Amino acid sequence: MVHNLTPVRVIFADTDAMGIVYHTNYIKWFEIGRSEIFRQLGLFYSEIEKHGFNFPVTEVYCNYLLPAKYDQLLFVETRIDYISRVVIKFFYNIWDEQKKHVLTSGYTIHACTNAEGKVRRIPQILLDLKAKYNIKGE
Amino acid sequence: MVHNLTPVRVIFADTDAMGIVYHTNYIKWFEIGRSEIFRQLGLFYSEIEKHGFNFPVTEVYCNYLLPAKYDQLLFVETRIDYISRVVIKFFYNIWDEQKKHVLTSGYTIHACTNAEGKVRRIPQILLDLKAKYNIKGE
Amino acid sequence: MVHNLTPVRVIFADTDAMGIVYHTNYIKWFEIGRSEIFRQLGLFYSEIEKHGFNFPVTEVYCNYLLPAKYDQLLFVETRIDYISRVVIKFFYNIWDEQKKHVLTSGYTIHACTNAEGKVRRIPQILLDLKAKYNIKGE
Amino acid sequence: MVHNLTPVRVIFADTDAMGIVYHTNYIKWFEIGRSEIFRQLGLFYSEIEKHGFNFPVTEVYCNYLLPAKYDQLLFVETRIDYISRVVIKFFYNIWDEQKKHVLTSGYTIHACTNAEGKVRRIPQILLDLKAKYNIKGE
Repeated sequence: MVHNLTPVRVIFADTDAMGIVYHTNYIKWFEIGRSEIFRQLGLFYSEIEKHGFNFPVTEVYCNYLLPAKYDQLLFVETRIDYISRVVIKFFYNIWDEQKKHVLTSGYTIHACTNAEGKVRRIPQILLDLKAKYNIKGE
Repeated sequence: MVHNLTPVRVIFADTDAMGIVYHTNYIKWFEIGRSEIFRQLGLFYSEIEKHGFNFPVTEVYCNYLLPAKYDQLLFVETRIDYISRVVIKFFYNIWDEQKKHVLTSGYTIHACTNAEGKVRRIPQILLDLKAKYNIKGE
Repeated sequence: MVHNLTPVRVIFADTDAMGIVYHTNYIKWFEIGRSEIFRQLGLFYSEIEKHGFNFPVTEVYCNYLLPAKYDQLLFVETRIDYISRVVIKFFYNIWDEQKKHVLTSGYTIHACTNAEGKVRRIPQILLDLKAKYNIKGE
Repeated sequence: MVHNLTPVRVIFADTDAMGIVYHTNYIKWFEIGRSEIFRQLGLFYSEIEKHGFNFPVTEVYCNYLLPAKYDQLLFVETRIDYISRVVIKFFYNIWDEQKKHVLTSGYTIHACTNAEGKVRRIPQILLDLKAKYNIKGE
């Protein structure tokens, strides 16, 4: 199954007064994972976007298992779970430096819209990934 | 059912290059809702915290229905869904200015820890809310 | 001198692992001040923007005098310092709840561009503020 | 002169509805530069912090020359400008991918405090950098 692993270093900006990473920042790092898995597959999100496709998030779920702290090196693991004609779903695990523990895991579901925000079909270039990488989908 | 409604004005900092509010910012506004519903109930999160209680998020879910845009006035509606001896669950709806449309809805689940991050029981002051405001819980 | 005072409540999202507000968040609150002083003057930034004017920041300075902490109520005080045909300058003070202490103070300078980012003249509607409110400018 | 160059990739979270990187995010990236130049010098900010030293920002200045956009690869260049017994000053340039254009440049000045926020002397381990790397300072 196609997957991507991208490092992220925690800075003070990512933490909060509880001394741990603020919960929405893991979800922001999910975006880094999506961008990098596309790049790894030879697709450039910024290129697809220029052709008038946006992929706004329609659902997010995140489960927080262990806290990350200032200056930790983390790894964002991203998988494409599912591609249909109208949605893409990604799975994520955020690992500690030694890749022993999953700190958070979650998913995002994305629709496809044009630049004005109107729903459109997932572009063929993404549908083509399904056969190539054995990704689920209707 | 006890609930709180707090206004939020969208600034450029909240938006992204798709021209809409970036998805994690709604989840950040959920925190405003939690803080304000506690204040409304006469509890001050910062006071509870001084007694060595933190309430880190253990799960987040958010469903994005309609996009919010720059300079929109929104309302964060917060409800306490559930309080047990180990978790609290909040429900949220983010409404447009006219309170006609729910733009996003979601929930967060929180554990209770001491200042060092070790799990502890939900404090009595929160458990007392259950009877007073008819909140679910085991 | 025309000025605006807008409240901001510190949430965990604004703080960092030093236990204080992360330094860039004050500068983000400056944007709230700009947006609100315009609104107070009967100008709506989102309206001006629809006419093809953007006001990107070209310089920021901020001086941090005293730290703000979780759950504090703060006030963002904003003044328009200067309007010329090509730039606007705003001054800011962020006050504590009692308005006794300035926690941070700073300024931002803004150019005027069209929607594609090309520099253009400050619109007449802003230049008109100078005489009306006795604002400096060449 | 000792300096560090660290890559940063722009994601949607960093941008705003003007289609460019939101101005405070460059200042957040300055923090990445500080953290990495310390690491390069064999100092670990998280280690120094454990010994009870924090380095809160007391002044920030940033000059925005050219906008960065979604998906651009940038480089944060960091230099230690000055170390005295009470402050450290860093200089930053944020470069485009080809390192042809400086997009933003700025500086930060930092005091040294203990974990409770009380001002203390800069630790000897930092003062030692001055002679070693020919850094300015009183």
